[in-house]
Amino acid sequence: MTPPNPPGRFRVGLLGNGTVGSALAALLPEHADRIEVRTGLRPELTGILTRSSGDFDDLLERSDLIVELIGGIEPAREYVLRAMRAGRHVVTANKQLLSQHGEELWDTARELGVQLRFEGAVAGVVPVIRVLQESLAGATIDRVHGIVNGTTNFILTEMARTGATFSEALAEAQRLGFAEADPAEDVDGRDAAAKMAILARLAFDTPVRLDQVRYEGIEHIKPDDLEYARELGLGLKLIGTAERIGGGLSVRVHPAFLYPGHPLASVSGPFNAVTVESEAITEITMSGPGAGGPQTASAVLGDVISAMIPPASTPETTQALKLVQDVVSAFYLHLEVADEPGVLAQVAQLLAEQGVSVKSVVQKGMRDQARLVMVVHPVLESRFSGAMKLIADLAVLRAPPRAIRVLEEEFG
Amino acid sequence: MTPPNPPGRFRVGLLGNGTVGSALAALLPEHADRIEVRTGLRPELTGILTRSSGDFDDLLERSDLIVELIGGIEPAREYVLRAMRAGRHVVTANKQLLSQHGEELWDTARELGVQLRFEGAVAGVVPVIRVLQESLAGATIDRVHGIVNGTTNFILTEMARTGATFSEALAEAQRLGFAEADPAEDVDGRDAAAKMAILARLAFDTPVRLDQVRYEGIEHIKPDDLEYARELGLGLKLIGTAERIGGGLSVRVHPAFLYPGHPLASVSGPFNAVTVESEAITEITMSGPGAGGPQTASAVLGDVISAMIPPASTPETTQALKLVQDVVSAFYLHLEVADEPGVLAQVAQLLAEQGVSVKSVVQKGMRDQARLVMVVHPVLESRFSGAMKLIADLAVLRAPPRAIRVLEEEFG
Repeated sequence: MTPPNPPGRFRVGLLGNGTVGSALAALLPEHADRIEVRTGLRPELTGILTRSSGDFDDLLERSDLIVELIGGIEPAREYVLRAMRAGRHVVTANKQLLSQHGEELWDTARELGVQLRFEGAVAGVVPVIRVLQESLAGATIDRVHGIVNGTTNFILTEMARTGATFSEALAEAQRLGFAEADPAEDVDGRDAAAKMAILARLAFDTPVRLDQVRYEGIEHIKPDDLEYARELGLGLKLIGTAERIGGGLSVRVHPAFLYPGHPLASVSGPFNAVTVESEAITEITMSGPGAGGPQTASAVLGDVISAMIPPASTPETTQALKLVQDVVSAFYLHLEVADEPGVLAQVAQLLAEQGVSVKSVVQKGMRDQARLVMVVHPVLESRFSGAMKLIADLAVLRAPPRAIRVLEEEFG
Repeated sequence: MTPPNPPGRFRVGLLGNGTVGSALAALLPEHADRIEVRTGLRPELTGILTRSSGDFDDLLERSDLIVELIGGIEPAREYVLRAMRAGRHVVTANKQLLSQHGEELWDTARELGVQLRFEGAVAGVVPVIRVLQESLAGATIDRVHGIVNGTTNFILTEMARTGATFSEALAEAQRLGFAEADPAEDVDGRDAAAKMAILARLAFDTPVRLDQVRYEGIEHIKPDDLEYARELGLGLKLIGTAERIGGGLSVRVHPAFLYPGHPLASVSGPFNAVTVESEAITEITMSGPGAGGPQTASAVLGDVISAMIPPASTPETTQALKLVQDVVSAFYLHLEVADEPGVLAQVAQLLAEQGVSVKSVVQKGMRDQARLVMVVHPVLESRFSGAMKLIADLAVLRAPPRAIRVLEEEFG
């Protein structure tokens, strides 16, 4: 259906130049080489239409695929429909549009045999749309639980962490860029409701519109609630739910307490996460940053690449990185030593000589010997092994030293 | 490339009839109706080849796609190559084969334009292969961390929970079906190393063979290590890592302690999880059951369906479930009441009359009033609302009652 494009090129027309649009415009040329190797086609941006500049018909004429990041209902809806009717694939991140006019758009895409992809519309780069549509196409889904609004999750995390009121935590979220100047749709649950309408549609093959989703926000949550809940062992999240109930379907968004073992309980700050439950698969949980220009643009770019190629083939190896064997690790070190003065000093001295720096120590006496348990800061493994060999030779050692790596959290 | 199949049918030939194979043979007819609606083609099993029965050429002739679940290197490798050379798509869950002969197979698939899909080879139903190949095709990946062996994760979870030795926890895992009779490849890290070789290949477009992955198992872990680590706030996992290091690539598997905030720290029991890190996207974490017949079969079926259809279109709504509004929830209930005798009794009486059952109560006096915080067992929301209205009218109430839902963990 796509009109013949210039040989070797794949022309992307962009609608919208906000946070996500400008991030995509930067990402596309940066990855053009790799995408060309992968797909055989070189993606190029043919133009950017904004609300104030550009001509849609002209952009459409010169594009193989339209990325809609203009937001809202109109003219986004009209542009998406016109692009598909002209045989173009469309990638969008517009949750309002899909949760209110999804069936019209999906019907059109199916009838015309064009692709309409929308990973960026729900939970940013968390690949929940693709997983529901493709990985789980063969599973009967019972329930989807999601933390699909990063603003509210940040606010609730702050309230729990610092005892702040809702207003104080919202102000902090705004200061850090995790809440918009007008946060109404985020904090009242409507944004999450739109996303759950889309997830419910995909998980249960049932048409679900935003106005059919019951939602409640977090404005009324008091610091007290979080304090008492902690005593009961509970954490608070804004949870979207879509689940089968007695032959029907319930889709709703509301704050809910979670027990510590719940797969969503540990999702904190601006992160999003979605758990999909099915009798056959038990459950899958996916989490990651739920918003942000570069993150959502990365999801959009994944959709663009998918539209460029026939179903995944594993590309040729292009990088052929050299395989490295000696790496940097932090270590836990367990020593059984004689309980006599100066042992810790001897061990510490040997470590220091090899450039191994101690982060924490626990020492416990046991009759005539002691256990010395340390965590050391990250160091090249060969240096740590060198120190271990020297320590093993110490006269005060009562058993071979034991070491286990420690993974430090670098992101997030 | 696929030979003309009978109109409306998609013929699947199955190699192997073990745990996953027999689960797939059950799953396919069960989902045939839904798959036909989704793809326009009705999948049917044309036959099952085992090591002792069936003729491969005959099966190949009558199949549009071959599912290889026979395991090991030969004859699996030969079958997969012959199927692709005959123009058939192939779905496999064979990590040994891919980690030792992957390039040969991927090259063949690419050259012949057939699909070779293998979601089931790594982390069962956790969709890490598809996410790396498709969702993240536009991201530069810096690191992949994975808990990709459920047997070892179960053993380490048991050792931490009960203080058991490695041998005791292994015996328990075998008793519960989470470890095989010969657990050598699981506990020595080789199984995880094969999976990390595959993930590293996909994440970094670099050829990685199993024999290039450095691995260490968990046989030498002592209960002591876990006990001291707990004092230091650490949990122990068998971690596979593939990461860029100074222009090279390190791929390795070893036990490692994790700080509590690490996205993999809360993955317990036989679950698998993979975290993908990239500067642009921060990180995505995916978790779920890492093995099991029905779970892995579900991943295989997702691959089969993907091979049946052109890139995802959103199928027509087929179920049109009725949207349900009144659902069952557990609740947290926060009441500010007069601090006088009989208040708890009054509240408890009203709840009981509405069929609301109390799970836990915290009561605190504050000068002349008290706070009563309860969690109630799951109940139809309309009944709970009824009880709330009656409670709000009690003379002893000093502020409107506050209620927040509590999510209980049902799976896992």
